Amino acid sequence: MSLTEKIAQAAVAAARKAASSIGVPMNIAVLDDGAHLKAFARMDGAVLGSIDIALGKAKTSALFGMTSEAVGEFCKPGGTSPGLELTNGTLVVFAGGMPIRDGSGALIGAVGVSGGGVEQDRQVANAAVEAVQSAHT
Amino acid sequence: MSLTEKIAQAAVAAARKAASSIGVPMNIAVLDDGAHLKAFARMDGAVLGSIDIALGKAKTSALFGMTSEAVGEFCKPGGTSPGLELTNGTLVVFAGGMPIRDGSGALIGAVGVSGGGVEQDRQVANAAVEAVQSAHT
Amino acid sequence: MSLTEKIAQAAVAAARKAASSIGVPMNIAVLDDGAHLKAFARMDGAVLGSIDIALGKAKTSALFGMTSEAVGEFCKPGGTSPGLELTNGTLVVFAGGMPIRDGSGALIGAVGVSGGGVEQDRQVANAAVEAVQSAHT
Amino acid sequence: MSLTEKIAQAAVAAARKAASSIGVPMNIAVLDDGAHLKAFARMDGAVLGSIDIALGKAKTSALFGMTSEAVGEFCKPGGTSPGLELTNGTLVVFAGGMPIRDGSGALIGAVGVSGGGVEQDRQVANAAVEAVQSAHT
Repeated sequence: MSLTEKIAQAAVAAARKAASSIGVPMNIAVLDDGAHLKAFARMDGAVLGSIDIALGKAKTSALFGMTSEAVGEFCKPGGTSPGLELTNGTLVVFAGGMPIRDGSGALIGAVGVSGGGVEQDRQVANAAVEAVQSAHT
Repeated sequence: MSLTEKIAQAAVAAARKAASSIGVPMNIAVLDDGAHLKAFARMDGAVLGSIDIALGKAKTSALFGMTSEAVGEFCKPGGTSPGLELTNGTLVVFAGGMPIRDGSGALIGAVGVSGGGVEQDRQVANAAVEAVQSAHT
Repeated sequence: MSLTEKIAQAAVAAARKAASSIGVPMNIAVLDDGAHLKAFARMDGAVLGSIDIALGKAKTSALFGMTSEAVGEFCKPGGTSPGLELTNGTLVVFAGGMPIRDGSGALIGAVGVSGGGVEQDRQVANAAVEAVQSAHT
Repeated sequence: MSLTEKIAQAAVAAARKAASSIGVPMNIAVLDDGAHLKAFARMDGAVLGSIDIALGKAKTSALFGMTSEAVGEFCKPGGTSPGLELTNGTLVVFAGGMPIRDGSGALIGAVGVSGGGVEQDRQVANAAVEAVQSAHT
């Protein structure tokens, strides 16, 4: 299954709702499994510097099929892959990027969220992914 | 007036509707007056190479406050400004980018559309701008 | 309120005066709230390598609406956002960048200063911001 | 003689005055003989896309010691050096960039101006250069 616009917009809508519920305006990016941009929304008041971060988190998750912070484990001090974050035109390796999978578990894209604290970003990205998962069932 | 998410989403929705009506899937980008991404949608089936073109057309219109093809007049053969398209990290100087203005005529952002023929792209961008203009009145 | 040339030049003048008073030639950059260059001055004797740093500090503060060193807190060892400094075409995350706000507290731009020790840079940037603030009252 | 801040600011002031006299807000950049930024001013209302163009014209003139349009002669259709404009991280090869020379004729820097029509840009850059020349005598 490929990442349709319907799925991408559902992910954005769920993220926007989750961000609104905690009162933190966010940037929300959804990419397909080729890491190409599918949908993006900057909520009013979201910080400009987070646009690139949201895009980067989504790219990181799409390219590696794991959360952005899981990619970060490889390049943290003492990790196996120092400088990994410098590859692919730079990655973003803290939380807020999550893979999106279809009903069979296959990677179909990723969402990246930025604008709040890292834990807030992670929660909002998770809300986007859960909205897509639940639509599969 | 600044470019709100409501305006940006209205522009995207109008462009999507216009693109659907002619049966051509498009990439649609909306930027604010600082040329920062505000909203983006890639319709299902829109060609990947047009993502960057839609973003580039919108950037061109936002940075110069005119249509992307008007910027192109300056750098076409015999124009006053050969190579203008190489500035600002490269511009996109054919039709499909249009400035978005508030009710007083002040520049608040731009829309960029790509995916069809150039005239189709221009028409779809125009539909986005008209939707915003009519909301002012 | 937007960042006028008058405000930008007042910020540069205040920074230049503060730098002169401590005998350290500096690079001084002022950006608007979209992180676009508004004014720049390199004092005689200021080190060339600091041009890009002054611009980068100002960009960092404009994009995040906080001091450059506050952005640095997120990506220091043990911080929540390792590698944040690699985003947005690279940031500069040590002191010398400060947001400029209007009388109501809204972000209208940023100043970035480089050429001395970090504490000197911070003081000179602060002088620029204070000159703008005091003009509001 | 090197390009002092005094000379750079005199060039900017003369350009600003000339631009004001024709009622066209401009971006004005002054670089030293190493093509490093020395002074910059964006007049209120000057188009954002012209920031990079003013910087590029000044870079082109500083690197080649001639006007930006003279560099353009080499890479125009039928010229000796097709693609020259793609070198040095891209050049800007239409009028508005001019070398700045000291009293002995030695290159000390360049000015780049953008925001109006090409002929307007050229006139304003020329005003900047003349202000510096007349200060030599």
